[in-house]
Amino acid sequence: MSSAKHAPKSPFPFELVNGHLTEIEKEIRAQADLFEQEVRDYFTYVCDTSGKRIRPALSILVAGALGNCNREHHRLGVILELIHLATLIHDDIIDGADTRRGAPTANAKWGNSMSVLLGDCLFAHAMTEATAFDDMKICRKIGKASRDVCTGEIIQTQRRFDLNLEREGYFRIIEMKTGALFAAATELSAALAGASESEQKSLYTYGMKLGTAYQIYDDCVDLVGQEAAIGKTLGTDLQRGKLTLPVINLLEAVSEEQRAAIEALILADEPLDATALEGITDHRDALTAATLTASELLNEARSELLFLPRNESKDALAQITYYLDGLLADCASK
Amino acid sequence: MSSAKHAPKSPFPFELVNGHLTEIEKEIRAQADLFEQEVRDYFTYVCDTSGKRIRPALSILVAGALGNCNREHHRLGVILELIHLATLIHDDIIDGADTRRGAPTANAKWGNSMSVLLGDCLFAHAMTEATAFDDMKICRKIGKASRDVCTGEIIQTQRRFDLNLEREGYFRIIEMKTGALFAAATELSAALAGASESEQKSLYTYGMKLGTAYQIYDDCVDLVGQEAAIGKTLGTDLQRGKLTLPVINLLEAVSEEQRAAIEALILADEPLDATALEGITDHRDALTAATLTASELLNEARSELLFLPRNESKDALAQITYYLDGLLADCASK
Repeated sequence: MSSAKHAPKSPFPFELVNGHLTEIEKEIRAQADLFEQEVRDYFTYVCDTSGKRIRPALSILVAGALGNCNREHHRLGVILELIHLATLIHDDIIDGADTRRGAPTANAKWGNSMSVLLGDCLFAHAMTEATAFDDMKICRKIGKASRDVCTGEIIQTQRRFDLNLEREGYFRIIEMKTGALFAAATELSAALAGASESEQKSLYTYGMKLGTAYQIYDDCVDLVGQEAAIGKTLGTDLQRGKLTLPVINLLEAVSEEQRAAIEALILADEPLDATALEGITDHRDALTAATLTASELLNEARSELLFLPRNESKDALAQITYYLDGLLADCASK
Repeated sequence: MSSAKHAPKSPFPFELVNGHLTEIEKEIRAQADLFEQEVRDYFTYVCDTSGKRIRPALSILVAGALGNCNREHHRLGVILELIHLATLIHDDIIDGADTRRGAPTANAKWGNSMSVLLGDCLFAHAMTEATAFDDMKICRKIGKASRDVCTGEIIQTQRRFDLNLEREGYFRIIEMKTGALFAAATELSAALAGASESEQKSLYTYGMKLGTAYQIYDDCVDLVGQEAAIGKTLGTDLQRGKLTLPVINLLEAVSEEQRAAIEALILADEPLDATALEGITDHRDALTAATLTASELLNEARSELLFLPRNESKDALAQITYYLDGLLADCASK
């Protein structure tokens, strides 16, 4: 899943999760002993090179906000991270990615066949561990969220180079491929803390909107790159035919003639460079509009936290949204 | 998984499962409605072109033998078949297979990326459905068996072209990649029928030994082909570096000099043809010995059925072993 490609190094710079994340990291590493000996080294390598433990951090913070963080929250964090790692392994195959966080990907190191099997093995293990929850519903919702992630990616793959992908279709894809696992982290953490149905629903919505905003941010950064302004750096998404929100915005805003020219460039796999965008005054607006859409989602996510009593964890859940909002503003100003 | 490649068209020609299998087939097809609309056509295509429903048949027969076949046995059959289908989709990617049962594979039709995701989606769905069992242990064991299947394939992939693969290593691989899901079908069916722990264990062993024998049969057929005698048709396993029981037998039986010559051929991807095997009088014995090993496993599998009361389903479980034994004898006489 592309959600991790461009993310900042430390999206959760909060003291209060550090202890828990250290514990979760230990628990993730300890999973190695549960695999057959032949699989352990692969597993450890993958742990070393991918995943920022965002989903476990969300799980811990929600539990803390509800004043009840226990072993089951740690288990939830571990399982969701394992599922996330499995999807990263398969995504790198699909994207033909050679490196992740500066290190060779599993497919670059051991080939596609081994990576297909390794992702499968991790996922099967994660689902096995998910049966340890007292409440079967937790396991069921983890399975459903995983299916949603795959389904979102399937639809994204179907619609590659589909210039008619509309905003609604784009949101359906990213809610499934990224939102679902964020929402599982926050909703199920609330359930494990004994929250009411309506509280669980609020935290589900918080996770879904945060994950969706995060994916939009990732898609914007993919387009503008780390330093360059739009049009100077062509993102990998577009090369792979993935139409993301800023591009959809652009195609909607331009004249029919300009649209035809841009579409031709995309289909011909040509860069959307400065020359191509010459005369299209609103190409910056398209990016800014995308970041504003994400900002609105973050606002809405924050409003779902209102019912929570004030404490450090609640503040941290809010801070995450402000932090991401800051990154979006930086991206728009490039 | 290669287990389905060379299998006879109707390994379960038994009247008494037909009704149940028709029902299970309907239930498998009905799963389509539980996927998002975009995934349904892929799913239906895969159902049309792969899987012989052996695992559901075993589940039904065990339930019948224990005199208690209910809806949960149907669910078990559906779930195990979905997991099997998911592994077939990924195996075809790994093997670069273009056709299965005469129809284009998923990867041939839609490419590797889509097939990775489709297999993932099927597996995530199957695990989600597995949470519907009243007893969480059933779901847990299905997860473990799935992890074993992947692990067996990982080890097989690691040991490709490893001429030191010994008999023990071969059995470890095939017990995991093929035995585990057969054993899950028979053990968990017994558990769902209310069988005692020791009865469950017997039926686990029956399934494990049957599955292992089945894989040996498949490996022998891969080597001798459909009509040709050994040495005339090179199997796809050997081309992919998979050393199977008849080849391991051969390498053990020959002189050091002959072994070096055969190993060189395997590593150079050259066919093990008549010229290569000239002077190696026991190359037929190697195949025969493999079929005899499988026959012994079938004998042992049958002995696990002794505790069951005599009825049609028990007879059918025994008949399966005789049926496979007959196929092994045919293979050895080629």
